Amino acid sequence: MGEFFNVVESEKAYEFISKLKSVEGFEILDVRESISRTSAEDVIAGEDLPGFNRSTVDGYAVRSPDVFGASLSTPAMLKVVGEIKIDEEYEKVLGEDEALKVPTGGKLPDGADAVVMVEDTREAGEYIEVFKPVAPGQNVMRKDEDVAKGSIVLRKGERINVGHVALLLNLGMVNVKVVRRVRVGLISTGDEVIEPEMKRTFPHVRDSNTHSLKAFLERLGYEVKRYGISHDDFDELRSLMLRSFEENDVTVSAGGSSVGVRDYTVDAINSIGRPGVLIHGVLVSPGKPTIFGLVDGHPFVGLPGHPSSFTLSAFVFLIPLLRKLSGEEDWMLKPTGRFKIADNVFSKQGRETFIWSERLYRGGEVLVKPLMFKSGMISPAARADGFIRIPAGVEGYYEGDFVEFYSISEGLLI
Amino acid sequence: MGEFFNVVESEKAYEFISKLKSVEGFEILDVRESISRTSAEDVIAGEDLPGFNRSTVDGYAVRSPDVFGASLSTPAMLKVVGEIKIDEEYEKVLGEDEALKVPTGGKLPDGADAVVMVEDTREAGEYIEVFKPVAPGQNVMRKDEDVAKGSIVLRKGERINVGHVALLLNLGMVNVKVVRRVRVGLISTGDEVIEPEMKRTFPHVRDSNTHSLKAFLERLGYEVKRYGISHDDFDELRSLMLRSFEENDVTVSAGGSSVGVRDYTVDAINSIGRPGVLIHGVLVSPGKPTIFGLVDGHPFVGLPGHPSSFTLSAFVFLIPLLRKLSGEEDWMLKPTGRFKIADNVFSKQGRETFIWSERLYRGGEVLVKPLMFKSGMISPAARADGFIRIPAGVEGYYEGDFVEFYSISEGLLI
Repeated sequence: MGEFFNVVESEKAYEFISKLKSVEGFEILDVRESISRTSAEDVIAGEDLPGFNRSTVDGYAVRSPDVFGASLSTPAMLKVVGEIKIDEEYEKVLGEDEALKVPTGGKLPDGADAVVMVEDTREAGEYIEVFKPVAPGQNVMRKDEDVAKGSIVLRKGERINVGHVALLLNLGMVNVKVVRRVRVGLISTGDEVIEPEMKRTFPHVRDSNTHSLKAFLERLGYEVKRYGISHDDFDELRSLMLRSFEENDVTVSAGGSSVGVRDYTVDAINSIGRPGVLIHGVLVSPGKPTIFGLVDGHPFVGLPGHPSSFTLSAFVFLIPLLRKLSGEEDWMLKPTGRFKIADNVFSKQGRETFIWSERLYRGGEVLVKPLMFKSGMISPAARADGFIRIPAGVEGYYEGDFVEFYSISEGLLI
Repeated sequence: MGEFFNVVESEKAYEFISKLKSVEGFEILDVRESISRTSAEDVIAGEDLPGFNRSTVDGYAVRSPDVFGASLSTPAMLKVVGEIKIDEEYEKVLGEDEALKVPTGGKLPDGADAVVMVEDTREAGEYIEVFKPVAPGQNVMRKDEDVAKGSIVLRKGERINVGHVALLLNLGMVNVKVVRRVRVGLISTGDEVIEPEMKRTFPHVRDSNTHSLKAFLERLGYEVKRYGISHDDFDELRSLMLRSFEENDVTVSAGGSSVGVRDYTVDAINSIGRPGVLIHGVLVSPGKPTIFGLVDGHPFVGLPGHPSSFTLSAFVFLIPLLRKLSGEEDWMLKPTGRFKIADNVFSKQGRETFIWSERLYRGGEVLVKPLMFKSGMISPAARADGFIRIPAGVEGYYEGDFVEFYSISEGLLI
């Protein structure tokens, strides 16, 4: 066991996550119920979109060779064979030196390969004069230019967004195969931890961690079961863990604040199966007490007990892990963007540091303001709309420097 | 009616939205079910947090005057009266020249007003030498420093996030009063529009609009009812509208592609009540055909029928409107950030222009790449993770310029 008792850089934690396998099993869902789920297969278009050659301007559908070399001084003369509305089609093949008047969005007749804009023509009885040549395909959206039949419109491992839903429905696909929901078991630990409904006297702290995380993860589409609060007791913790390991794909504990509880957690995991705890602390602030383990293929994440650290570590480590288990290709934590910082800020002893922050909108500029607070405060997480990251080895930033910002809502629905 | 037939800048549309009243009615929810809902009242803390004066370091709780002037050469000598663990408290009042050993997070005894870090002391039998003075409050989080009893922890009109949930549960508040869900009625219009399940032949287009919008709005927490597809028929459209107006807080139509349908829509609205259609087109691209109306206090939004324009207009106008109706203070569309653009891009004739885009991550930089496509394509919205905005009067941007980017997932959960 000893050799695994390592405190590692966050890269190692992500390396651990990268090796986890996606859960097995899928569901066939109505596309309209699939937002934020992960596609379980490459989805192939069964039709072309738009499905017909479509004019992108108001003008005349023509055969481009017929207007080759047309100019103001030597216009091409074409016979106008008719005019169609947007919902009409010309039944015949467009012949040589013929033109069909078409609206924007209208269907090109067979034979036509381009559209002359109405501004480049002049009506002359049954004829038009065309003053400008068009290249083949000009002012036309090809029938398979938006989507070609047989092409992939949704990749395996992509998270489904509202744009995919619209696209699939347009293609007439109303069902989609998605990875089944990942099941998460949550255990709170600590003699001092009580349920939120209870009256608090020293040294009690109410368990906000597993309750708020459950609410949040359910909103993200995970199936979450809470196993209550374990005392600082090896047997009690182990038996809750066993239940969670049996019923879920991943088990998450919210550690108590004392060092003793972490020891119980490690011992319990290691007593259940192999290889047990693999990462015993991550060199990030906050979140150093974060633990990762694997028990007979079942991942375990131990998050720090303090609410602010807990929520931050959940964003930084747990959600990427859950996205990986859900089969998402693009599971890694990614910054929303890089923004100018509105204050000086310093890292914790050169360690990789995350700080709750909020964006400020100042005269068209978007800045990010770190919320200064004492370690242990809970309220800043409610004020923040995200957090910044100071990489390992960087001592801090001065006002005006660009910093990575991670929005709370990013990485959730996209 | 004539005077209202105005095409306006987007500012006017937001001015219209800004005047809409929040829906009446609220619900009492379990805090754990309240993420993304709007608080219906200021929520006042009933307790202090952390609730006791807490040490932020490992050290000795002291009375600061006792170590005033302490230095390496003239240390203060204090009697150590004991040591507490994190879950213990010292029952007596700390007396003059006394010190109590406390861990990080430990409770200060009455009488103590500061903590000397263990590094600044040396044990000497029952005593410690203190080599550094501390100011009152140093290394201490005051009992009401995180949250003071009586202070507002969640404002009326705030959207509830996971941080609020954690904070309220920590304070023992398990219920919260939220604005009731806004009810949205959706109507699709157009002779050419068919349901997604149906076989498509020219000139049919499948209705992805109201289906995908319903899915999306439901995920955002709105109550959405779809009223099917109306033909280009005044009476049919009017009767669907009447039903929707009766059963919802806001009615939204997805217009057909032809000009005729827009006329039916305007006529139907105006025939139902006063003042009727107020904004008949907005100077944005895409989304120009967007209509806003008000019928006996019930807002109406007519969105363009093309899927890509429809979804963009829904993000730009409809969602801010729904947030306003939900009582959100911070309802206005806000950019996720300003990013360097990875390509040249041009506006549509100097008009305010929105373009589906995706972020690129290149060597630590976050860029935004506009997705170039022909007007009328549906697939780019599925590839995009947001859109950029070119303000009115700006002709475009060159590669490397900073542009406003709006993430699809932003404005949803924050």
